[in-house]
Amino acid sequence: MVTMGAALLAATSALAQNSATATSPDGDVQVSVSIDGDGRAAYAVNRKGKAILAPSKLGFLLTDAVKIDRRLSITGQETRDFDENWTQPWGEWKTIRNRYRELKVHFKETTALARVFSVTFRLYDDGVGFRYEFPEQPNLAHANIADELTEFAFASDGIAWWKPAFLWNREEYLYNKTPLSAVSNADTPITIKLADGTHVALHEAALVDYSGMAVSRTEGTTLRAALHPGAGEPKVQKKGAWTTPWRSLIIADDAAGVYHSHLMLNLNEPNKLGDVSWIKPGKFAGVWWNMIKGEWSWARGPKHGATNENVKRYIDFASANKIPHLLVEGWNIGWDGDWFGNGYDMDFAKPTEDFDVDMLVAYGKKKGVRLIGHHETGGAATHYEKQFDTAFKFAADHDYMVVKTGYVTDAGQMEREDADGKKYREWHQGQWMVNHQLRVVETAARYKIGIDSHEPVKGTGLHRTYPNWVAREGMRGMEYNAWPGKNPPEHEANVVFTRMLEGPMDFTPGILSLKGSDDSDLLSTIAKQLALYVVIYSPVQMVADTPENYAKYPGPLKFIRDVPTDWQETRVLNAEIGDFVTIARKERGGENWYIGAVGDEEARTLSFKLDFLNPGTSYVAEIYRDGDEADYRTEKRHSIVIESKTLRNTDSLTLQVAPGGGFAIRLVPAKGK
Amino acid sequence: MVTMGAALLAATSALAQNSATATSPDGDVQVSVSIDGDGRAAYAVNRKGKAILAPSKLGFLLTDAVKIDRRLSITGQETRDFDENWTQPWGEWKTIRNRYRELKVHFKETTALARVFSVTFRLYDDGVGFRYEFPEQPNLAHANIADELTEFAFASDGIAWWKPAFLWNREEYLYNKTPLSAVSNADTPITIKLADGTHVALHEAALVDYSGMAVSRTEGTTLRAALHPGAGEPKVQKKGAWTTPWRSLIIADDAAGVYHSHLMLNLNEPNKLGDVSWIKPGKFAGVWWNMIKGEWSWARGPKHGATNENVKRYIDFASANKIPHLLVEGWNIGWDGDWFGNGYDMDFAKPTEDFDVDMLVAYGKKKGVRLIGHHETGGAATHYEKQFDTAFKFAADHDYMVVKTGYVTDAGQMEREDADGKKYREWHQGQWMVNHQLRVVETAARYKIGIDSHEPVKGTGLHRTYPNWVAREGMRGMEYNAWPGKNPPEHEANVVFTRMLEGPMDFTPGILSLKGSDDSDLLSTIAKQLALYVVIYSPVQMVADTPENYAKYPGPLKFIRDVPTDWQETRVLNAEIGDFVTIARKERGGENWYIGAVGDEEARTLSFKLDFLNPGTSYVAEIYRDGDEADYRTEKRHSIVIESKTLRNTDSLTLQVAPGGGFAIRLVPAKGK
Repeated sequence: MVTMGAALLAATSALAQNSATATSPDGDVQVSVSIDGDGRAAYAVNRKGKAILAPSKLGFLLTDAVKIDRRLSITGQETRDFDENWTQPWGEWKTIRNRYRELKVHFKETTALARVFSVTFRLYDDGVGFRYEFPEQPNLAHANIADELTEFAFASDGIAWWKPAFLWNREEYLYNKTPLSAVSNADTPITIKLADGTHVALHEAALVDYSGMAVSRTEGTTLRAALHPGAGEPKVQKKGAWTTPWRSLIIADDAAGVYHSHLMLNLNEPNKLGDVSWIKPGKFAGVWWNMIKGEWSWARGPKHGATNENVKRYIDFASANKIPHLLVEGWNIGWDGDWFGNGYDMDFAKPTEDFDVDMLVAYGKKKGVRLIGHHETGGAATHYEKQFDTAFKFAADHDYMVVKTGYVTDAGQMEREDADGKKYREWHQGQWMVNHQLRVVETAARYKIGIDSHEPVKGTGLHRTYPNWVAREGMRGMEYNAWPGKNPPEHEANVVFTRMLEGPMDFTPGILSLKGSDDSDLLSTIAKQLALYVVIYSPVQMVADTPENYAKYPGPLKFIRDVPTDWQETRVLNAEIGDFVTIARKERGGENWYIGAVGDEEARTLSFKLDFLNPGTSYVAEIYRDGDEADYRTEKRHSIVIESKTLRNTDSLTLQVAPGGGFAIRLVPAKGK
Repeated sequence: MVTMGAALLAATSALAQNSATATSPDGDVQVSVSIDGDGRAAYAVNRKGKAILAPSKLGFLLTDAVKIDRRLSITGQETRDFDENWTQPWGEWKTIRNRYRELKVHFKETTALARVFSVTFRLYDDGVGFRYEFPEQPNLAHANIADELTEFAFASDGIAWWKPAFLWNREEYLYNKTPLSAVSNADTPITIKLADGTHVALHEAALVDYSGMAVSRTEGTTLRAALHPGAGEPKVQKKGAWTTPWRSLIIADDAAGVYHSHLMLNLNEPNKLGDVSWIKPGKFAGVWWNMIKGEWSWARGPKHGATNENVKRYIDFASANKIPHLLVEGWNIGWDGDWFGNGYDMDFAKPTEDFDVDMLVAYGKKKGVRLIGHHETGGAATHYEKQFDTAFKFAADHDYMVVKTGYVTDAGQMEREDADGKKYREWHQGQWMVNHQLRVVETAARYKIGIDSHEPVKGTGLHRTYPNWVAREGMRGMEYNAWPGKNPPEHEANVVFTRMLEGPMDFTPGILSLKGSDDSDLLSTIAKQLALYVVIYSPVQMVADTPENYAKYPGPLKFIRDVPTDWQETRVLNAEIGDFVTIARKERGGENWYIGAVGDEEARTLSFKLDFLNPGTSYVAEIYRDGDEADYRTEKRHSIVIESKTLRNTDSLTLQVAPGGGFAIRLVPAKGK
């Protein structure tokens, strides 16, 4: 039998009048909220008169009470306008405008339960964010959420760039490019190009005390929220008054517009940490690539990488190249056994015998290089929490500005221990880990330390609220180029319009040797490695290759030495997702501009205007471009041309990008005109 | 960082030799089991040398222990052959041959946990079934299963017929027809036609004390098990020794071959009930269609359907047409309030005042008609269990052969109450409901009563083990033709090769009036309604229209009166999934054959040989076919030709099928010869 009886259909007329609507400040984006004949609430999104989302249902499945879904009525609505400018302590833009119209719609069940909630929509000129807000109430004292029923019913098909959700390797999958109507289960951000060229990026903002949202295609072009699991418990557990994270849709005319949006940051709360001047954006070298390549080990023994000798040599390299930080992995006790998914031996206050931390910190101080700490938990999250204070006190005592964390274990294998010592297997994006990650960041902040999370919870713009959350991984970074199954040439042109919408990524660029493990070749040219310092944003950007390798590339190394990691403003000059992207950024607190471009496996020509430069000023352009025969498939991948030109804001530039290539440009105002 | 360290890669050589293989009795189907470099177990399936499944992973995610996935070794293997014939007490075939080769592979973790399990593969000439078997063991005393990691990695793409899983309306969705590579989350059976025409049906057999398996597409053409949820608990909870249901793949050259397979039944245990001669296949009328159409009500009041007067009239109709049973819905107390998803008023031993059960049972007995009971729980499953004995004693005391159950509530809204009165929201296909449904069937068996489950757990061949589980719904049946959004003409040609693989369906055919609610027209011809009695199998087949309507169609009604519901053998004469199917069935315990054919929205000609008839016998064929102008889109949907022919097994037949049409044939050996 069908589940809809005639009884419910009778409700139609009574509820049919329920509706609410609002438009963005510029009038382009419109949200309409309605209630159908069964009392189901839905919202729809239009832009410039075109339907982006058809009516999309709202609601929740609970594990121990009737779902919140049908038999709803709208009991009220309010709108308000907001407009402010705020400053990022660090970022891709210094000043961010936060201008939106807010529509708050109040819902109440028409049944005896009479549960109430509101949905607040924030309409921006370039998208929409909305969240559920539940007040404390007797009939929902505890909300044990089985899943969220929020739909994203796209009104038309399109091309989707997406990563599969819930698989063993977590966020570390290449992007699929398929019709939206062929998506299965995807993590967000998922970016969609509709038939008319409109680009939509679906994600979430301010993920706090909730489970990360993946999306599952139900039918046709309709996606539905699919929360990451709890460990044999409701996916989300709340009590009293609570809200969901913001479900966010960036909507723009093109790929560049998606990247230019500040919606993710604006949907987050302002800085809660106050003065964060102790976070100083900068590059870092690392005792790292040789481990990734398998030449050195994290574990102690003959191949141990984190030795006094190695670290001193890396400090010398960093110092000579004005690189203010040095990451050292494998510095602590705990790596010797089978730590993968089993980090119970990890001690984050106990260096190995061959790592004299006090001597090395002093040596670095003399040379202007600070160490970066590393806390690899091997998935033993509770074990890590027990060490929080000793671990971060150790880091602070040794003047670390940043600690890199790691959670190397498969999806669904994160270990939590409750007060009684019972163990649970959590998911990296589940509610408990979302809270754990924030505990790490808040603890670190108390010690004035920044966090660079690997195997993290996905980024949702929380670095606005916690500016010490300087970077994270959460995607296939450079390390994959050390191993079989390397990142394809199009990878970064996908990442810019998907993963990078989450916030800074510790991608670890700059492998000028273009060599991975077993002497394998990266699928990249040298010029592309330089371009990544502009194209991929992080306030803490790695200089990832070894000093020995950099010594062979003094010309290209100059760009890495020069390029900053903090910006006044950013412009995407041209882009097609997965094909190419050119980005220009202006140095924060300076007049220099930097341009980076990456392509895919095709050779192509990229042209762009320089009209963003200062009128009347002439600039010396230091151009690092692919050699004419450069090609990631041949030894010519090493072919790079470094040349200089004088350019003005009335000029345009046209440059060749080799297969697997790119280019990097530094523009410096010419002395005395 | 990637989750695979060098440490694990080192395991490769040590494990690489692990493998096992076996072939079906005829050698066509081959299974190969292997262990990869990370110690992950996989199985692959070939047929006639062609890869059907590429290596597909095995394993489990647990909520409170490390997953069973990597670091496995094969510690042993055994094969055995089996061949027997067994008899169905009722069914589409009387005699079933169960012939397979079994390969049992023993696995053990190479880690300290050293957990062990076996996977038993049963290789049939037309497919494969396999299940996991866990012995009792100290390191897995309790298995709290978060999900099953079993993959079905199809080696090539194909066309898939599938229903979405985990949506509010449970199994009641139309079939999607998409590339396999565009499936998202699907309930089983899912049937796939590969590029070379090979048909594969993926499902499960013997679903007992476990959660129903849906499949989720991970990437490309790989599906992975996705178990139906628990109510904020592990999806499956086991202790001691346990096994999974059989994961089953029917593999055949064509659609007909899929239907002809006995693999589903053979993977189930033999009859546990002993003598079930008290189950007598037969048709039933129903005080029902007028309620579905909204003309009568289940609730008491002026429109109440289950009145003495109505029921007596329906008994008279059934008696006059040799229909041995009559379903009466709305006969009991509990329907007056808002019972949808809230069946707490339902009392299955308390008839309404206007339903004199003793009088009606006596009246029926005199006329040779037994009543069929109806237990609509409205999703209050525990409330139903508390009434089991009174409810089934009531049914037995009133000589019911069958009880129809109902669980009308949305997915994830089934209500369970624990001993402390705490309530949980279960899923129709979750472990608890799987066990509940079997408790219903076992309780009914003690009272010698059959069960026809609506809003059921999907069928997995358990009617072999519990022959009183005579039918179930679990798909969009005829009722949808009463409402807006009617079943399309292709529906039944989809259902035969998907839902019907589960076992008997209470589809409720025979709406000769071709009229639904508000005088709406079915998308069917009259001849197709007759064909459904042959095409859709159930041992208890409804005669679903009203006596008043049947009175208008004496000619077609004769076929319904004649057609049996129990068969000696069955042959699919021709078929394309979703387009057309012709089925011939021989009456059990008789010499008559019946043929039914249904098409889709297209007009077409169907031809077939009669070589299955008895050589040397001539048969009188009573043919019920679409009139030459018949069309489901016009009033000509009522056009039917009833004609007679004499035919022999050397003859062929060619018949026209109208848009939305079909035909039905009764073949009776001619007297004297």
